[in-house]
This record gives sequence, structure tokens and C-alpha cells, in this order.
Amino acid sequence: MPIHIYWEDLTPGSTRELGTTSASAEEIKDFAEQFDPQPFHLDELAGRKSVFGGLCASGWHTCAMAMRLTVDNFLRESASMGSPGLENLRWLKPVYPDDQLSLRHTILEARPMRKRPEAGLVRSRWELFNQNGEKVLEMEGWGMFGRREPATPEELARYEAERAAS
Amino acid sequence: MPIHIYWEDLTPGSTRELGTTSASAEEIKDFAEQFDPQPFHLDELAGRKSVFGGLCASGWHTCAMAMRLTVDNFLRESASMGSPGLENLRWLKPVYPDDQLSLRHTILEARPMRKRPEAGLVRSRWELFNQNGEKVLEMEGWGMFGRREPATPEELARYEAERAAS
Repeated sequence: MPIHIYWEDLTPGSTRELGTTSASAEEIKDFAEQFDPQPFHLDELAGRKSVFGGLCASGWHTCAMAMRLTVDNFLRESASMGSPGLENLRWLKPVYPDDQLSLRHTILEARPMRKRPEAGLVRSRWELFNQNGEKVLEMEGWGMFGRREPATPEELARYEAERAAS
Repeated sequence: MPIHIYWEDLTPGSTRELGTTSASAEEIKDFAEQFDPQPFHLDELAGRKSVFGGLCASGWHTCAMAMRLTVDNFLRESASMGSPGLENLRWLKPVYPDDQLSLRHTILEARPMRKRPEAGLVRSRWELFNQNGEKVLEMEGWGMFGRREPATPEELARYEAERAAS
């Protein structure tokens, strides 16, 4: 897949729909056996008896599914250089077997980088909705992307003046 | 495993060492193929050419490995009722194949719950260190735990007065 999304293309306010995914009961249990062997992620009956009301995916499984959609439908076509982390991650609703999960990605903010003029930072929000329109996951965090053209000293000075003024 | 850790036992300031784990190159690639198929998580050469300097684990794989240690060495013995989310997640250093990763868990804060007097919330910090003592992952977030004894109206009133005063 040729790269055609660079830092300059990630306009604050823009939104992308990043597709739909789901996990079967078997996949939920497989992930849980490997990484999160709590009863409500491994067994239907334990799930029904838990606060979640049924077998449900590990929150880390949900995040990993959102990541797969992000890679397939966005990062793969972009000059992505990885992420330093997230500022916020909320598991809002349980994810049950075969829930149809749709991911929305919104660019919140873009910053040039003084120490790496060939790259820039972007703050994004990910929102994952189930087939009933309920938000099950929300995350906000930073990603680093290559630029079409390196930041000039003038751009960096202008950006820092704007930040200082705001 | 009998449950012997309840909300009352999670004292702010207390620290637990939650064991050591690692992922082989094969395991790093398996996770990435399923959830995060970016070149630097799939291929040694692509890793060497990336900002990470070598094949490295997906950040979500690192989180999932930390979760496994948390379940095996803490949650399994506790009255854990799940987590609403994290306030902060930082991928500080790349995780390379066979890195020996040790997890430290610190209780930061404990809150009773008005709407669920039989449970309480705890804010924790997770820190994952590699064999060189470098911190590779840090997370802070909330968990819900069952209590030995439900909160009394007096305890809830006292807690809310303390919060209002601080």
C-alpha cells in the first residue's frame, strides 16, 4: 500500500470511519487465556454471574481490535512513526461475542516537532461503537507521523508564539 | 485460588511486585499479525530501519503482557470487579524479543462508592521495567473491588466531607 497520508494531511477536526470488526466467543476466550484469564472473559456462566451480565472481551482485546482497524484502514496508508501513549482510555460498555464494532477516528490537534523537524505529532480520539450505537471504548492519545516537508524555523517559531499566546 | 484481597486491603502507597514475563520474536510477530500488523512489529529488518532500531512488540502486546502478570499475581486473589479505564498510558521504550519485563503495582488512592456500597474504587500505577532497569510502560487507572464490609452512611459522609475540604 503506497503511503499517501502525511502529518500535513491530518487536519484537526477531521474524522475518519475506520471500519467494523467483531470477535467470536472462541476468540474472546483465546485472547483471555493468553493475556487476561479472569472468569468473565473465559466462561459464559461466570460472565452471567458477573457485573458484566455475560461473557465479554478483555478490555485489552477490545483495544487490540481497535488497533487492527486503525492499522488496516489508516496507518497502513500513512507515514506513521508510532505512538508515545494515550492520555485517556475508557472501557464504557462490555463487548460481547459477535458484537459489530465500528471505529471512528477524529484528529484533535497537530503539533510540529522542534527536535524532529521531519515529523509531527497528532492528538486523536478513537471511539468504538457497537451495533446498538453504544460507545464501548474511547481513547485519546498521540501519534507521530512523517511530514511531506520538514518544519522550517519560521513555522516552529510561529507555532511556539501561538502556544505562548493561548 | 481463594480470594483474600478486598478493597480495604488496598492501602494507598502500598507497592506489589507482580512478577516477570517476556515475549519471543515469534510471539511478538504472532500478536502483530493478529492485531497490529505494522512492519516494525513483524519483521527484523523493518524494525532495524525504523525509529525503534529493531523488531519490537506492539504497545498493545506490552499492555496485554502486563495484564497477564496483574491477573496471575494480584487480581486472581482479589475481589476485582473490572476497570472503567485508564487516565494515562505511556509507551516509554521499545520492548524487544526476550526482554525480561518486571511489573510493579502501586496503589495511589482509594474511594468508597455511594451507588455501590459493597464495592470501592482504587487508582493504581503500573510500571513495567526491562532487564536494564529502563521503564518501558507506565499506566495509571482505576479498578473496582469488592469490600469486606459495605460502606456505612457515616463513612460515605466522612469521605465526601474530606474531599470537599481538600
